[in-house]
Amino acid sequence: MAESDWQAQLDTPVPVVDMATVRANIRALQDDCDRAGVTNRPHIKTHKSIMLARLQIEHGARGITCQKLAEAELMARAGFDDILISYNIIGRPKMPRLAELHEKVDLRVVSDNETVVDGLSAAVATASRPLKVLVECDTGRQRCGVPSPAAAAELAERINSAPGLTFDGLMLYPPSGPTGDSARFVTKTRELCAQKGLQVTTVSAGGTPNRPHIGGCGETEYRAGTCIYNDRQMIRDGVADLSDCALFVYTSVIGHPQPGRIMLDAGSKALSSDLLSFDDFGFLPDYPEARIYEFNEEHGFVDVSRCTSVPAIGEVVRVLPNHVCPVSNLFDQVLLREADGTLRPLRVDARGMCT
Amino acid sequence: MAESDWQAQLDTPVPVVDMATVRANIRALQDDCDRAGVTNRPHIKTHKSIMLARLQIEHGARGITCQKLAEAELMARAGFDDILISYNIIGRPKMPRLAELHEKVDLRVVSDNETVVDGLSAAVATASRPLKVLVECDTGRQRCGVPSPAAAAELAERINSAPGLTFDGLMLYPPSGPTGDSARFVTKTRELCAQKGLQVTTVSAGGTPNRPHIGGCGETEYRAGTCIYNDRQMIRDGVADLSDCALFVYTSVIGHPQPGRIMLDAGSKALSSDLLSFDDFGFLPDYPEARIYEFNEEHGFVDVSRCTSVPAIGEVVRVLPNHVCPVSNLFDQVLLREADGTLRPLRVDARGMCT
Repeated sequence: MAESDWQAQLDTPVPVVDMATVRANIRALQDDCDRAGVTNRPHIKTHKSIMLARLQIEHGARGITCQKLAEAELMARAGFDDILISYNIIGRPKMPRLAELHEKVDLRVVSDNETVVDGLSAAVATASRPLKVLVECDTGRQRCGVPSPAAAAELAERINSAPGLTFDGLMLYPPSGPTGDSARFVTKTRELCAQKGLQVTTVSAGGTPNRPHIGGCGETEYRAGTCIYNDRQMIRDGVADLSDCALFVYTSVIGHPQPGRIMLDAGSKALSSDLLSFDDFGFLPDYPEARIYEFNEEHGFVDVSRCTSVPAIGEVVRVLPNHVCPVSNLFDQVLLREADGTLRPLRVDARGMCT
Repeated sequence: MAESDWQAQLDTPVPVVDMATVRANIRALQDDCDRAGVTNRPHIKTHKSIMLARLQIEHGARGITCQKLAEAELMARAGFDDILISYNIIGRPKMPRLAELHEKVDLRVVSDNETVVDGLSAAVATASRPLKVLVECDTGRQRCGVPSPAAAAELAERINSAPGLTFDGLMLYPPSGPTGDSARFVTKTRELCAQKGLQVTTVSAGGTPNRPHIGGCGETEYRAGTCIYNDRQMIRDGVADLSDCALFVYTSVIGHPQPGRIMLDAGSKALSSDLLSFDDFGFLPDYPEARIYEFNEEHGFVDVSRCTSVPAIGEVVRVLPNHVCPVSNLFDQVLLREADGTLRPLRVDARGMCT
């Protein structure tokens, strides 16, 4: 079947994942981690799929990273037994859930403040073994994380003295670019922890944009999510080429109401509104001069005034998302495409699991 | 139970819908339509709920509007028998679906181009009765729609001569503001259609922002979606007050890593990245000086440097979305809250149904 034939059969809008590219991306991350001598603990937030997480384990990943407790619960039910939740867990309804998960799998969680530590401790005070907790460190990204090695060591001490908890190490999400500041933060914190008699067993770093620097922070394990699919942002950041991008949203041209403007059947409910500093909402690799200048919920507005050729009404075109992670989270399933052209649905198992 | 108590029990992030406000909003839209003498055909894209669509019918709505075929199929299965799909339907896999739906319910669809007309005609050429098609008109919003009354009348003629189709009227989504241009477009198109012997039975206008002008375009029916919940955009547009907003996303403060910054457990996967010309990602009515200046997927970054009081770590705070429609589409269920404080889950039945 010619390229255009299989595309014309798609019930758009629909994300299609090229499996050869996915396998190559999984292998490449594993190779990077192996070369750097760090454990690969891929982040499932991008694909949210049990099958793809298993594929990552089969390629050598040690365990998985989840961002939310609900994602981890799902993966534990599916048999994954080594899970890091890289997120402050807080709130009454989450505490019995956390305690149950902790009994079931080898779980590690993080904290950047005493309130979270106290909550975790209360949740697992009567557990059969201590819960491993990493101190989340802010080495420059200014998201979560304690702001200094001194604060990290202090919180580590608090963790280690809290009933039911044991300090296991550090978690950081380094800013993109040179790793010097992050490495110094880690080294200094190790020193301060040693002075307190605390051992830093795990140092978890991550992020697809930081892949060229894997190992550079002195980490023992690496969490990367986006690189299983890649996206327009990763190309801009210089860590992927178009040929490394595995997921495209296929969308139909539904109209050409005025010269210079076509309309797509994909809007913010299919491609998300993530701009990530781009000034348009996605990239059409087969019509590179086209510009998705606006989204409504189910409409993509495309300026085709500079296009050498314009897709016809009814044509199915592919869009590379600015940011792929929120896109797979919009769909109950994606289509997997093998090299021989076969298509099969893949459930996005952890879709919407944000609690 | 005090306000803070029920909030503390929530497994965040979670959208909570105040049902007294929803009922008042449904009633207010029905009253506006009744006063203007137009049929109320609410758009289900905002709530995507069978139960809430039924509530709208019970309050007097004549039928419902869906944006996508998949939404309409779901609603038809739930028993709704009078449905407008306000969208160009195109693509091979959709054609048998459309034909089946057309046999099942009183269906109307729209078109703004000949390719769509030809596709619709081929799909229902052998149907037991003609499919009613409205011409989508662009009266200034520059989304879909034919650009002139002459083009509208011409497409109407094409529809009426296409096997299996019958021209039923016009559909417009007027730009916000005065309705003069839209009204003139409709009047002129009626004249041109009359000259061709074509009757404009239905004129469908819509949009919550245009509610103050219901009836002003000479429409026979009105489609409004957002006003069942309302949101920050509707307040800015002057068509809602905070007390008319029924859906808030409740989120926990997970950290306060630096002075002036707190972190929420809701990011773009809970609140969407829709900015809609705001320069921040949502409004915290109980901390009005706070500013959600950035989203990651599961993190909300909040500048609290100008707050007179700052929510504590662990506190549950509510966020009014910039745009509520993509938010309910992110969740498999929302929580309904009655005046007596009871909470119950409501499935977002048509969530993710974008095909």
